[in-house]
This record gives sequence, C-alpha cells and structure tokens, in this order.
Amino acid sequence: MDEFSFINSIKPKEYHQSALIKGMGDDAAVFQPLTGSVVTAVDTFVEHVHFSRQTMKLFQAGYRALAANMSDLAAMGATPAFYLASVVVPDSLSIQDLYKIFSGMKDLANAYNMDLIGGDTVSGKVLTLSITVIGFVDDQQARYRHLARDGDVVFVTGTLGDAQAGYYILTHAGNYKNSPYYINRHRMPIPRVHFARALAHLDRVALNDISDGLANEAAEIAEASGTDMCLYADHIPVSPGFSQFPPALQRKWTFFGGEDFELLGTVAADQWEDIETAAAKTKTPVTKIGRVYSSQNHEPGRVFLYENNQKKVLHKEGYTHFR
Amino acid sequence: MDEFSFINSIKPKEYHQSALIKGMGDDAAVFQPLTGSVVTAVDTFVEHVHFSRQTMKLFQAGYRALAANMSDLAAMGATPAFYLASVVVPDSLSIQDLYKIFSGMKDLANAYNMDLIGGDTVSGKVLTLSITVIGFVDDQQARYRHLARDGDVVFVTGTLGDAQAGYYILTHAGNYKNSPYYINRHRMPIPRVHFARALAHLDRVALNDISDGLANEAAEIAEASGTDMCLYADHIPVSPGFSQFPPALQRKWTFFGGEDFELLGTVAADQWEDIETAAAKTKTPVTKIGRVYSSQNHEPGRVFLYENNQKKVLHKEGYTHFR
Repeated sequence: MDEFSFINSIKPKEYHQSALIKGMGDDAAVFQPLTGSVVTAVDTFVEHVHFSRQTMKLFQAGYRALAANMSDLAAMGATPAFYLASVVVPDSLSIQDLYKIFSGMKDLANAYNMDLIGGDTVSGKVLTLSITVIGFVDDQQARYRHLARDGDVVFVTGTLGDAQAGYYILTHAGNYKNSPYYINRHRMPIPRVHFARALAHLDRVALNDISDGLANEAAEIAEASGTDMCLYADHIPVSPGFSQFPPALQRKWTFFGGEDFELLGTVAADQWEDIETAAAKTKTPVTKIGRVYSSQNHEPGRVFLYENNQKKVLHKEGYTHFR
Repeated sequence: MDEFSFINSIKPKEYHQSALIKGMGDDAAVFQPLTGSVVTAVDTFVEHVHFSRQTMKLFQAGYRALAANMSDLAAMGATPAFYLASVVVPDSLSIQDLYKIFSGMKDLANAYNMDLIGGDTVSGKVLTLSITVIGFVDDQQARYRHLARDGDVVFVTGTLGDAQAGYYILTHAGNYKNSPYYINRHRMPIPRVHFARALAHLDRVALNDISDGLANEAAEIAEASGTDMCLYADHIPVSPGFSQFPPALQRKWTFFGGEDFELLGTVAADQWEDIETAAAKTKTPVTKIGRVYSSQNHEPGRVFLYENNQKKVLHKEGYTHFR
C-alpha cells in the first residue's frame, strides 16, 4: 500500500465537530471556531527515546502520544476538537502496525469527540509520531501559568510518580503489588480534560500539566507569575502501595518523574471548594499540596518544599540535552 | 544548552499577527481568528529522505520545509499566519546548526508576517522537521480541489521541473547553463501565497499545489471534481535552457517531478482574464495549459495529455512506498 492509499483509508467517514468545514482530503483542513479562541500545541515522540515497543504496544504508543498532547489542551482549559498526525514510518513497520498506531489515537479521540483532520506518513529510519492538537476555549477562560497570585492554594490532580513506577516494573523483573495499575498509568495516561473543563466558571485558575515533573512545572508557574510557591511534602498524593518502591526512586518519580499528565494548578483560597466540586463532578482525585506566596528578599519564581519541619528550595531537575 | 533554554531563545520577541493572544511559553498557543475560517496542515521532512545536507544548507532545509507547508495554505487561498515547528535533533547537530534551521524558517516567515507560536525539540537519531502551519481564509473563498467544472481553463504558475533539475545539477557533475537558478529552485522554492490571495475576489477557483508532480495533482483535481481534464503538452511551461537536460528527464521532471510548489488551478473560462490580472499584479508567471471536461463513457477523474496531435491518458506515477 502506498502513502496515498493509506491516508485515504484512515480518513474519517464522518466527523464529530460542527466547527469543521473540510477535514482530510485537500491541501489543508478548514474549520470555523463557533465561539471563543483557538488553542494549539505540537509534540513529537521518537521510538527508543520517548517510547519503546518493549514497554508498550503500538496501539498504546499512538494513544499515549495523543494523550500527552491533549493534556496540553487540558492545561489551557480548552476543549479538544481536532488533531493532525504526522508519522515517520520505518521499513520494518507493516501497514497493520501503522493501523495500530492510528487506531490507538482514534480510540482516545473518539472518547472526546476529536476529529483527525490532517495526516501525513513519510519514510524514515526511526518511528516518530508528531501530533498537533487544536481545541477551543472561551475568552478569558484560558488557564495560563502566569495567573498564580499571592495566597492561592496549590493543587494537583491524581497521584504522582505512577507512570515512572509502571515503566520501572516493566523494565525491572520482580514481584510488585498493583502492577497492572502502574503499567496502565505508563501506557495509557488520562488527560484531565473533563476536570479542567469543569473549572470553566471560575474567573482565574493557573494550570500546567505535569509532563516534566512536579518540581519543574511548579517552577514554571512561579516564574511566570512572579511569585514563590511552597509545597508540603507529606501532602503530595501517591497511589496506594507506592511505598513498595525504593525511597530514593519514590522521591525521584514524585518530584521529577513527569509523564503522569496530571494537572498542577493554583486558585484563590476562597475558591478551593469549587475545585473540590469540579473534582467530585468529574470523579477526579484532587489534593491541596501547597500555597503561593509573594517572594521576599529575592527574585521571584522559587519553589520551596516543606518537609520534616524544614523549608528548603526545591530545585528543578536539570534537563538532559534535548531529551 | 538544554531544550528548555533553546526554546526560550527562539521565542519571538514580538509577534506580527493581531489574532494572536498567547504565543510560545505556555502549554499551548492561543489565538482568535478575527474573521473567516482557520486553515491548517502538517508536513514532515526527514533528512536523507526529503532533504540532504549534500544539496542544501540547514538554513535552506528550514526555509524549504516551511515553504512546502505554506504552499498548502496558498493552495487553499489562505493567508499564512502561524507555524509550529517540531524538530528531532540528532547528537551530531550543534546548537548553531539548530539555529540555522530555525533561522531559515524565520526568514521566510518574516516575509509573510507569520509568527512561530509553538516549538518543540526532541532527541533522536535522524534530523526530522515537522511543521504545522495555520492560516486564515474568508468563508466561501477556500480553494478546494473539488471545485473544477466542465469548461474551466486549467492553469499553472511558474515553470515546472526546475526543482528536480536543480537537484540533478547538484548530484551530477557537469557544465550546466543557469545552474544557480535551478539550484535555487530546489533549495528555496517560493510558495505562491501572493498570487493565490490576489484571486480572492473570484467566486470559484480550484487549486492544488504541485508537490507530487503535475500528473498526480491534475488527477486529484479531476477525481475530486468528478470531471476529466485535458492538458496540452506544448503549453506546459518550462524555464529557458530546460532543453539542455536529457529529454526523458525533462519529461519526468515536468510531469512527475513535483517540489516546485507551483499552483495548478482551474477557473471558469470567462474569468481567465482575472487570473492574468492577478498574475501581473503579483508578478507571477501563469500559463493556460488545458481544459476541464465532463467525462464521457467512463468513470470521471481521468487526465488526458494532448501531444503530437494525439490524446492519451496521462497516468499518475506510482507512489513509492511511504516516501
């Protein structure tokens, strides 16, 4: 099968989004947002760097790549609408394999009424998925990371470190409790779209999705907002049985793990109850983990960790070169 | 330098588009189209498959990748506004090299007031550029390929086959006339944005950009429109000196070459003068090369070539596997 026939074969038979005017099948897609603003992000996933067929199936690789991108939309408070997928296909990949990737994306997309409106497959040596997502958000409701204010409550959805634990289980033989749970968190993270949308009535919320670890995302919010932030170590939510892993790894995964695609947010303290209501409504666990402060006597943007009655600076983890 | 610092360093200091609300620096970009519809496309370019550092510099590879995508917007009649670039960066590439790629994109983008609103660099073995472009088009003015009608004039911008000729010159030592011209056509094609925009007052135009060769693009218009098409071989525009190349190659490049990113279009015969006016206004060479016909006694979608007083079916060229 050639690229042209393949792309034709994955072209949706019908679309969900009424904003869509022209989907796949021309030089470009055309849509008309009915209201509000357009939100868009792109992310690329390279085999052996960002995912491995040793720890997940191709269906899951497709699912996860889209989930990670949708998580960016959730972190903006946006409703996902469209995605475009560009895939570099090595010779070793069969058409059936390629269908599995697209089918993983489609499975997740369907659950959120998202439409595939652009697709592109090209030859190359390394399987690479590059996904662009497009969503809509009502004006004034975009959840920028610079919106944290002095006195805000800091909260996080779900539990942290699970995806890394799942990856660890898959790559370190052993006898673990709740293995399927952890493995699933690595392979098929849930973008917190419903929860973020349930906050739409709030006038101000800062949100980041935790793709690069709690410490880094907290620093991004604090730096962008010109505030400091303090997190309480014993409030950070982890899943039952997390203590089975070596303590150093628990700490690493919780603060620097990322890839759980949970949301980190801040909101005015008197609106914390609204966050709890949204959490209950969307069945999303939410935990209060800290406070936003004005910076004192130093450049703003610091994140502190309160642990064992001590307050210490929580440093960002160094990024590895371009990984 | 880590990814984070690099992305920060290429973040535009200022943006051109008033539609933009939030550029780079959050989980996603936000914009609000002031009028009309949003047009979007994605394309990926892999080193050694779609471009080679043997025939172009990194600056040109960046330029060309964006040009190819902008050409898709031109083919929809859209005005380019934004682009998102996701780059897979091998270890062998220096930061300076990476700047050259982004600088090639920026050079072209600036000429069209396009803003970079999303960027992502990841590690990988093979240099890969994945670009998403976003543009705007007024409603009813999108130039779909299904809009050809019986009796339409078929036209093409520029000259065909030049990009392939340039690539040939660069890969086959010899003494060629107009080498710099051909080489430039391979390295730095001009997306026909201005010409396409100058057609905005016309009520119906079908457009495709010639990325996969004249024969294939003509067939796409004919198939989508449910018509046939006849092209006149001796009308197909080639550049001065094109006859210096072997006749078989001339033919191959002209009909199947692609990558010139010229526009192929059809318009009602009584509006041909408007096409000529738009061409003159935007200094774009344009040539009438055929006619659209109702299909007779067969499934529509055929393209015929009139050559040496004979009318023969012009077959599409087989696509190589996923290339």
